[in-house]
Amino acid sequence: MDNFVWDKDRKSRTGVAEAVFCSHKSHTDLQAIIRFNMTNNSPVLFTRLSLQQWQALPTELQAVLDYDQCSATALLNFGSELSTKKQVCIVTAGTSDLAVATEAKRTLAFNGYQAPIFADLGVAGLWRLMDKIDDIRQYKIIIALAGMEGALFSVLAGLVRAPIIAVPTSVGYGVSSEGKLALDSALGSCSPGILTVNIDNGFGAANAAIKIMNQFNL
Amino acid sequence: MDNFVWDKDRKSRTGVAEAVFCSHKSHTDLQAIIRFNMTNNSPVLFTRLSLQQWQALPTELQAVLDYDQCSATALLNFGSELSTKKQVCIVTAGTSDLAVATEAKRTLAFNGYQAPIFADLGVAGLWRLMDKIDDIRQYKIIIALAGMEGALFSVLAGLVRAPIIAVPTSVGYGVSSEGKLALDSALGSCSPGILTVNIDNGFGAANAAIKIMNQFNL
Amino acid sequence: MDNFVWDKDRKSRTGVAEAVFCSHKSHTDLQAIIRFNMTNNSPVLFTRLSLQQWQALPTELQAVLDYDQCSATALLNFGSELSTKKQVCIVTAGTSDLAVATEAKRTLAFNGYQAPIFADLGVAGLWRLMDKIDDIRQYKIIIALAGMEGALFSVLAGLVRAPIIAVPTSVGYGVSSEGKLALDSALGSCSPGILTVNIDNGFGAANAAIKIMNQFNL
Amino acid sequence: MDNFVWDKDRKSRTGVAEAVFCSHKSHTDLQAIIRFNMTNNSPVLFTRLSLQQWQALPTELQAVLDYDQCSATALLNFGSELSTKKQVCIVTAGTSDLAVATEAKRTLAFNGYQAPIFADLGVAGLWRLMDKIDDIRQYKIIIALAGMEGALFSVLAGLVRAPIIAVPTSVGYGVSSEGKLALDSALGSCSPGILTVNIDNGFGAANAAIKIMNQFNL
Amino acid sequence: MDNFVWDKDRKSRTGVAEAVFCSHKSHTDLQAIIRFNMTNNSPVLFTRLSLQQWQALPTELQAVLDYDQCSATALLNFGSELSTKKQVCIVTAGTSDLAVATEAKRTLAFNGYQAPIFADLGVAGLWRLMDKIDDIRQYKIIIALAGMEGALFSVLAGLVRAPIIAVPTSVGYGVSSEGKLALDSALGSCSPGILTVNIDNGFGAANAAIKIMNQFNL
Amino acid sequence: MDNFVWDKDRKSRTGVAEAVFCSHKSHTDLQAIIRFNMTNNSPVLFTRLSLQQWQALPTELQAVLDYDQCSATALLNFGSELSTKKQVCIVTAGTSDLAVATEAKRTLAFNGYQAPIFADLGVAGLWRLMDKIDDIRQYKIIIALAGMEGALFSVLAGLVRAPIIAVPTSVGYGVSSEGKLALDSALGSCSPGILTVNIDNGFGAANAAIKIMNQFNL
Amino acid sequence: MDNFVWDKDRKSRTGVAEAVFCSHKSHTDLQAIIRFNMTNNSPVLFTRLSLQQWQALPTELQAVLDYDQCSATALLNFGSELSTKKQVCIVTAGTSDLAVATEAKRTLAFNGYQAPIFADLGVAGLWRLMDKIDDIRQYKIIIALAGMEGALFSVLAGLVRAPIIAVPTSVGYGVSSEGKLALDSALGSCSPGILTVNIDNGFGAANAAIKIMNQFNL
Amino acid sequence: MDNFVWDKDRKSRTGVAEAVFCSHKSHTDLQAIIRFNMTNNSPVLFTRLSLQQWQALPTELQAVLDYDQCSATALLNFGSELSTKKQVCIVTAGTSDLAVATEAKRTLAFNGYQAPIFADLGVAGLWRLMDKIDDIRQYKIIIALAGMEGALFSVLAGLVRAPIIAVPTSVGYGVSSEGKLALDSALGSCSPGILTVNIDNGFGAANAAIKIMNQFNL
Repeated sequence: MDNFVWDKDRKSRTGVAEAVFCSHKSHTDLQAIIRFNMTNNSPVLFTRLSLQQWQALPTELQAVLDYDQCSATALLNFGSELSTKKQVCIVTAGTSDLAVATEAKRTLAFNGYQAPIFADLGVAGLWRLMDKIDDIRQYKIIIALAGMEGALFSVLAGLVRAPIIAVPTSVGYGVSSEGKLALDSALGSCSPGILTVNIDNGFGAANAAIKIMNQFNL
Repeated sequence: MDNFVWDKDRKSRTGVAEAVFCSHKSHTDLQAIIRFNMTNNSPVLFTRLSLQQWQALPTELQAVLDYDQCSATALLNFGSELSTKKQVCIVTAGTSDLAVATEAKRTLAFNGYQAPIFADLGVAGLWRLMDKIDDIRQYKIIIALAGMEGALFSVLAGLVRAPIIAVPTSVGYGVSSEGKLALDSALGSCSPGILTVNIDNGFGAANAAIKIMNQFNL
Repeated sequence: MDNFVWDKDRKSRTGVAEAVFCSHKSHTDLQAIIRFNMTNNSPVLFTRLSLQQWQALPTELQAVLDYDQCSATALLNFGSELSTKKQVCIVTAGTSDLAVATEAKRTLAFNGYQAPIFADLGVAGLWRLMDKIDDIRQYKIIIALAGMEGALFSVLAGLVRAPIIAVPTSVGYGVSSEGKLALDSALGSCSPGILTVNIDNGFGAANAAIKIMNQFNL
Repeated sequence: MDNFVWDKDRKSRTGVAEAVFCSHKSHTDLQAIIRFNMTNNSPVLFTRLSLQQWQALPTELQAVLDYDQCSATALLNFGSELSTKKQVCIVTAGTSDLAVATEAKRTLAFNGYQAPIFADLGVAGLWRLMDKIDDIRQYKIIIALAGMEGALFSVLAGLVRAPIIAVPTSVGYGVSSEGKLALDSALGSCSPGILTVNIDNGFGAANAAIKIMNQFNL
Repeated sequence: MDNFVWDKDRKSRTGVAEAVFCSHKSHTDLQAIIRFNMTNNSPVLFTRLSLQQWQALPTELQAVLDYDQCSATALLNFGSELSTKKQVCIVTAGTSDLAVATEAKRTLAFNGYQAPIFADLGVAGLWRLMDKIDDIRQYKIIIALAGMEGALFSVLAGLVRAPIIAVPTSVGYGVSSEGKLALDSALGSCSPGILTVNIDNGFGAANAAIKIMNQFNL
Repeated sequence: MDNFVWDKDRKSRTGVAEAVFCSHKSHTDLQAIIRFNMTNNSPVLFTRLSLQQWQALPTELQAVLDYDQCSATALLNFGSELSTKKQVCIVTAGTSDLAVATEAKRTLAFNGYQAPIFADLGVAGLWRLMDKIDDIRQYKIIIALAGMEGALFSVLAGLVRAPIIAVPTSVGYGVSSEGKLALDSALGSCSPGILTVNIDNGFGAANAAIKIMNQFNL
Repeated sequence: MDNFVWDKDRKSRTGVAEAVFCSHKSHTDLQAIIRFNMTNNSPVLFTRLSLQQWQALPTELQAVLDYDQCSATALLNFGSELSTKKQVCIVTAGTSDLAVATEAKRTLAFNGYQAPIFADLGVAGLWRLMDKIDDIRQYKIIIALAGMEGALFSVLAGLVRAPIIAVPTSVGYGVSSEGKLALDSALGSCSPGILTVNIDNGFGAANAAIKIMNQFNL
Repeated sequence: MDNFVWDKDRKSRTGVAEAVFCSHKSHTDLQAIIRFNMTNNSPVLFTRLSLQQWQALPTELQAVLDYDQCSATALLNFGSELSTKKQVCIVTAGTSDLAVATEAKRTLAFNGYQAPIFADLGVAGLWRLMDKIDDIRQYKIIIALAGMEGALFSVLAGLVRAPIIAVPTSVGYGVSSEGKLALDSALGSCSPGILTVNIDNGFGAANAAIKIMNQFNL
């Protein structure tokens, strides 16, 4: 029996195509999946493809993938035009959140949505956020990233009409508990209407944004 | 100095009006807040207003509130017409989730959105969900509630195009840990694009749905 | 042997007098401690004196105590004048934090320090805090209280020169975990220089403020 | 005194033979155990034998072992015929679960039971499971593996008559907590009758299945 | 729409009939479910039906239910003969585990299986278990219950050929954490082949045993 | 079959007699155990016998028991002389620890050992401990009780030659987590040689002390 | 858009200048931040700059930084005179706490405050602390560091008038849980007035001390 | 000021000499401590001295130390005769526990007590323990080690008169949580009188045993 079953109709059924989560996958299985999709000429997004996994791929497979080390993502058969409408943007609390932010940005791009990143707007210096808030308000949906105590989520949600998709990141130490604190801050926020995804899950946040935009024909 | 500061512009700023979270509030403070809003003739939603708190209110305050014991919510100066469009629906895994589902339904109604509840569609008998899936697919946004292990979230998200706002409920015992398991199941789901709010937070899920619908002028 | 040993020199040794933490103490032991201090004519602060414990005291002991149900504190032999200098103030995120805030306020008063409470300035409506920020900046030390996700601590610390003594409160539900989330938010804040005490520990925050003010001869 | 005591009668007493759990064992102790069983000519299963431990073995010991790196298992003196009856099968939610699935498969084979693996049938694309469900229903016992949120366990248990032995795997990140979430999902499932073993414990699941089949003389 | 959807084919599909988990259900919903099944004349098992819920039922509904306060279970339309074969037995570590043991026993009886309880055989006095071990060995399947540290599971599993279905109970205090310790002891046992269900889940253990016995036509 | 199995040889086998842990036991079972031991004329210690359980006993059973509400213990057929040697003493950090201290004291007395309690010697006022340290040093074994952060254990262990049996108590709030903090402080102490028992387990600490004294023929 | 936004007014606004937390920052971003501040000639403190990150910097950037491997800190454009007043001192429980103590000492020095370290005064040998207590009492503020069970915090706070800023360290194993135990001991202490920062956060403790000293014009 | 303060009177004060816990200590500090004690000619025990730390020592320091890699301990100036009395023995549940057992054995030897190790007597094969139980019963004190679910502690404590000092080990995976499960099993045991130390703390267990034997002049 086969080691994988490709869900080729996922896009028509749910609005987002199947992607490949590479953690824990053997080299053999990864290569089989890449070759299967090369043969079918289907566009595929690979996430959590570690540098080590990437380096273990044969040269001919590396050649067909657009790999980004920072976000650990790779794109196969990707060539879509990006929309230039102001639909969705990404806001980060710190510079350290950029790896996860890039995972979100590349996932959106893979689906045809361009999303600017407003970086390093954490609330320790509130003016940084206030300086950019009018720009941010022009977007329909906001993906926000923060590690540590995640206070950005509550402040931002109290300032804008857009729904916030919060991505807690594993930035921090001690009580931050690998992102658990920022996660709970998003969920337990005093500002109503924040929506949350798993820690470091830039991919999931982008998918949710895409599902919303699909539903409303943007 | 006053014990509360009313955020009267929250609706224009964020799209959802200030609501009153009644837990931990003293009888004195609750009454002051009700009278303040009676005087201003402003519509207000009260959540987590326990039966004990309700019964401690003077008769004249009870008279102006529309109180629902099941969801522990009360409405003041509420009189909006409900839209009849198929915009948002509520799906529950079990009959035991109905209290939280009703909190969501009344919050939506308070903001003018009618939302039907599809109850008791948990995956232990998958046919129950499949029987209703075509009806459910007609809505733009789905609020899903589940306690215990919360498997409903993953299955539903794999079947529909609508974004899922998952509300984990505190139904269950032992490892369910007061809703913590269902919460983590929503966050850690293998189905991409699920958005999550705090345990038993029907109010928050409704607010997020409202923010999305506001943004897209529905 | 006796059931308690009075630490009568604690004030001269540490700057703050011994207080009585009433939880888990039997009625017999509580009465013995009150009578001991009545006899010695010493001023004493009682914390976490539940309504049930208070009601079980004989009338003649109730008569000598100044009891406040909201904060569950009682004062014996208290008569000090309050300073009118702007030394320390108390800021709360919500109306629901007032019980703990009052414990801090009465502890400060018992030691001769008057402290105003700026209530309900949570960051969901940032203007509420900005409206009062110039008043707050006039105090040397700020005791801040917040439950839920405790975002107030980070925002406030980024706006003022005063050290912040953060008191996480057990307001909230679900992931708030009885105050654990607000506690970790204070400790893991991206704003440097926040100092934290145990959940709901208004007494401890006041003591720390008093120790600082003592050291600098205010 | 000796560093190990061989439980040679475990098979007759409990139905399953003693196996060697290699984690934390020194090279010296591992070699002594292998030589002891070579001398006695007894068939032995080694689990959690890391690649590093394997590589540290002398060549003559490597030569007598059938080592599989993927599942980190080794077999000594193994030569049994496999039954061809449809007794037990293995179902996995994802490709990433195959290492643990192989530990179960090799443990079953070591005891004479052939078990096919139905891989990558996670509920994000429910059709994958439905496509194979009639084949799966032909087996008396099902060993199911899932990481992340483990929703497969609940769905599968609602569709078949066979008892499900759930093996949570440590696949996932963030709230998945190294398999803890999938474990709790199996235990807290709304589908009655799921039986659970420790995280990544393919060996234990296989042993339980063997004990059941032994009892019923299959 | 209705508040519940009855899964009437669950028995034919999975081997065990739908049962009603009464926690969190409103009085209205409970009564509707009872009346629905009275009308259909179908046998139903109710679990976690608290004394308070029982007492709130109208007399005519109480009259048709066989209620047991110790196990908080009720049976409707129950009248099956019990098999007298030695198929399954129940072993408890302490007298305090009898409430959960009775839930398992009544669930088995409801499905036609008689199961004796061997009570109070905890390992602090090992002779108690050894005294009964030959009797216990005559059963094909053993349901074992223990709270505190759950050492009974490991000892028993090392002495018998029958598969052990472990039911951790919430007996204990401090580190026992409401049954969490006994649960983890079952899962992490050094004796292979133990199968585990949720804390206090006598119902689930009985269901799993029934599924196994169904599969093997006992 | 019976609901309990009396371990009448436990004393000769382990040095301490069987005692009855009353939590979770039904009224019926409790009465049966009392009557069984009345009949046999054996001395028995009952722990965690709540006031409610005590009050539910028939008058004739209350009459034969020596019940102490503070420690929730009862003695049956107890009449031993107490040794007057300085063998073991009990030290508490606070007045609030006296209920658990009394459980230890009565357990020791039941076995013939008199143990004085040195109460309220917590390290916030170090002189209180230093004042009594010479008296304490005269005992061979010290049972120490502390809640909150349990700092007493480390300080005491650094000052005396006697082994310390630490009993963490559930006194405290917030991070004290029902005694978990004091427990971990005892286990993780920088002072070597501290021995620990479960939270609030005065009974267990006394038993351990008795086993040590038995072994050395005191 | 830029990857960082420099908060150049933080010092005038809050009393402490922006510092750079280097964890999770890419080499590119780190270099950009260093060059930006070289150009602006501004003094900057870098914390958590790992040896690996340091070694990856180009030689010309290494040349302008004062790097200390023990505390993983680097200073840019640092040249302030140190005050010689006895304002703040640092006390450690063990030699193993010196890395974090040095982070605090260098942060203070960067802001112009000289702080002596009193090392290895843990309470297992109480005389070590008592030997130095008169020296320690001469300082206005005490930063105390301890890992393991953190008993030093409580003892020290009961002996001095200075406020204690507790820094729990990740020294220890098992129940110490990477510093979590020492953290909770500081927060849950029986000695009132202890103020706490995150685990291993020497930087934060120094900042808090600086804010206090700023406020009182020392 | 110095980086360490030697507690040279600890032995006379507490019965056990100061030992050096090497984790987190810098190479510089370790060498200073070794040289200090070489100069003073005092016998010292070093624990948790990793192979890496050992290899970094200069040859002349390695030459004076008796290092054991398995237990990560080193002895300086050690030359005491070992008693041959049957005072204390060590029992392990598995072969994997031998590293920690050896730490205990060497600590005892360093203090003059010989202790045999009875290895691999875990309860999965109860006969292994029963075979040795008469030998074990000849010792006054038993140090028992177990990882995984730690069932050995309860069984052993029910069979012998000696007090059990339980050392939970970090052997296991999944729910074993690095030794946390075995720790809680020791603390929450149904067998009274078990005394517990921190995870993997063979050193602490040995120290406690020594303190007991000191007190009773063995």
